[in-house]
Amino acid sequence: MPRARSSKKRRKLTRKTTKKKKSSIRKESIKKRKAATLKELKGLGEGVYSQMIKRRFPSLKIPSRSTGNIIYDDRLGQYRLDDKSVTRSARNIRHIRPFTQLVWTASFTHGLSKTGKTSTLRDIFYSAQAFEIDFQNQRESDNIITDLETILGHSREEFNVFPEERSAIFGDLTIEYTVKGYEGIRTNLTSHPDGFMIGPALSTAELISTKANKVIVIEKGAMFTRFVEEQAFKKFKAILIHTAGQPPRLTRYIIRRLNDELGLPVYVFCDGDPWGMAIAITIICGSANAAHLSGLTTPEATWMGLYSSDIQKYDLPSERLKEVDIKRLYDMRKDPRCQDEPWKTQISHFLKHKRKCELEAFSRYGLDYVVKKYLPDRLA
Amino acid sequence: MPRARSSKKRRKLTRKTTKKKKSSIRKESIKKRKAATLKELKGLGEGVYSQMIKRRFPSLKIPSRSTGNIIYDDRLGQYRLDDKSVTRSARNIRHIRPFTQLVWTASFTHGLSKTGKTSTLRDIFYSAQAFEIDFQNQRESDNIITDLETILGHSREEFNVFPEERSAIFGDLTIEYTVKGYEGIRTNLTSHPDGFMIGPALSTAELISTKANKVIVIEKGAMFTRFVEEQAFKKFKAILIHTAGQPPRLTRYIIRRLNDELGLPVYVFCDGDPWGMAIAITIICGSANAAHLSGLTTPEATWMGLYSSDIQKYDLPSERLKEVDIKRLYDMRKDPRCQDEPWKTQISHFLKHKRKCELEAFSRYGLDYVVKKYLPDRLA
Repeated sequence: MPRARSSKKRRKLTRKTTKKKKSSIRKESIKKRKAATLKELKGLGEGVYSQMIKRRFPSLKIPSRSTGNIIYDDRLGQYRLDDKSVTRSARNIRHIRPFTQLVWTASFTHGLSKTGKTSTLRDIFYSAQAFEIDFQNQRESDNIITDLETILGHSREEFNVFPEERSAIFGDLTIEYTVKGYEGIRTNLTSHPDGFMIGPALSTAELISTKANKVIVIEKGAMFTRFVEEQAFKKFKAILIHTAGQPPRLTRYIIRRLNDELGLPVYVFCDGDPWGMAIAITIICGSANAAHLSGLTTPEATWMGLYSSDIQKYDLPSERLKEVDIKRLYDMRKDPRCQDEPWKTQISHFLKHKRKCELEAFSRYGLDYVVKKYLPDRLA
Repeated sequence: MPRARSSKKRRKLTRKTTKKKKSSIRKESIKKRKAATLKELKGLGEGVYSQMIKRRFPSLKIPSRSTGNIIYDDRLGQYRLDDKSVTRSARNIRHIRPFTQLVWTASFTHGLSKTGKTSTLRDIFYSAQAFEIDFQNQRESDNIITDLETILGHSREEFNVFPEERSAIFGDLTIEYTVKGYEGIRTNLTSHPDGFMIGPALSTAELISTKANKVIVIEKGAMFTRFVEEQAFKKFKAILIHTAGQPPRLTRYIIRRLNDELGLPVYVFCDGDPWGMAIAITIICGSANAAHLSGLTTPEATWMGLYSSDIQKYDLPSERLKEVDIKRLYDMRKDPRCQDEPWKTQISHFLKHKRKCELEAFSRYGLDYVVKKYLPDRLA
């Protein structure tokens, strides 16, 4: 049982970190982080330039993202890249194209970051045409942006390339914007009951103060609205986040920041099926796709349901698992991220009883049951 | 050409209405509308009750939603139901089940409206179980809610059954909430640059004041963010709405309200493909599915692009239309909602040139081109 032991060790380790963090909230501000990314982008350009001055073919070293170089780090509780790296050199004729694309992308995003403008993956693909940089399709430009993330070790949001999808946040948290035109302006996130969109402005705001003592992350909009209406955010002193299915990266980033900078524990609350579990796992342990990044996962977050065992315990309306659900569960049983509790037990339970259940199923006991009964049970 | 003439008449007619509205903004407040829906729900119950008191089998008359009863009303510029109706009676053994379900749904949503709580279609399906009302699946309960909409002539949002999906709004508009816990609180919708979620609270807020003189509805989040960043909302004095694809009903409802109550013209700005056109058509003319409702369409709204002809005019990067796109265009050519200009010409243009183009394609001319060049062109 070396797995179980190492994961216990991990949890102890992270708990200690939390304590430390709570007493001295991380001081590194968003402004500093932005400045650091900008500096690294500039450094990349300077590296290329200085090689050329020395009359050498410029080259760049990129950590390898091939499957063989992705390992699950038990101590970190997430996937990460191992030591292998590849060199992309202008000397190699097959490298010239991606090398040029990469340098242009670095220069373009440096411009974005400097002027405080944002962009999306799709936008970058089209923007390249203005510079006569040839991307055959968006997959090619997306790949180059991932290369850039890998070199810098920063996610693309940090150099102003944001996702299209948005989710929402609500709760007693005062933020201070850092985006152009809004610098220094503060907003408290209880002031709009439908929730605030998590976009470029919110994710780059400084987190100023909160009276909340936890974060509750919810998969479904209906449940999010219920929590606001039933004043659950007050009762539980919680900041609420609505992921709208698999959380976009910005949302995972803000969850991490709430945990990291404010020391708030995070509870993730999803449908009782393998897809709900997958959302929780992505928030807690990240995905293999993002093994080259570390700022998007929240290893200290807790999956709080729905468990397979809750379906029986609370006698919830449920449906039979489909073939595709069962296949997903078998995959999860082998997944290194699911070797701890409660994952192990719940996966077995799902496979034994073969039932699934949505968050809304609690409505059979009345609209406020989940807030008045289930949540206090689970938090206790 | 009777079509063309009648549509010209329609436009003239609506223009006149706008003028009238601008001078005297509709006074009917959200509170009054809520009270009216509540009264109608109560009336439905009282009708059933009074029949029973008279020892009659209770029955309800429901406008028929069968295809034969859905007609396109050229003058209204949307689909509506014709005169046929069906009677659902407790006397008929085959009617007892849907009759009971309908009465329960009316009573449940009456409770929601009275206490100011909200629900979703999915939630209603589960809530029924608490009352031992048997819905075999969600399609059955969804159908009953549509029956209730049809009887009342109010959309389900007005009796507090809200959709799951959300989109966003941003701009100089001051609203006053009417939801519990927020009554009387005012917010200006420029205060969060990522935009405000359009949920139950926003859609039921009173629209207090605005300095904007138009509404710009945008399909894509990237373009929405661009408009905020480039301060286009200030330059064009516009309230911005991000539909996130086909707009949820709440979003169509708020667009209608901005047009209706504040007299603001509405411009719809989508991808240059049949699916973008379909979004514009849904906002302007509604859908056959919602023929039983009239409060969700904005006949005075204008489709402002991307036109097929813009692809050539602005030399935008484009892709070849797929088989499925072309099929959709042929369907649209027969659609009664597409017999006016610019639809007719643009559909032919699409079919001739067989190219499509996304909003982001403007990025080839730099990130601010769409705001600095295209939009002023089109608005002129």
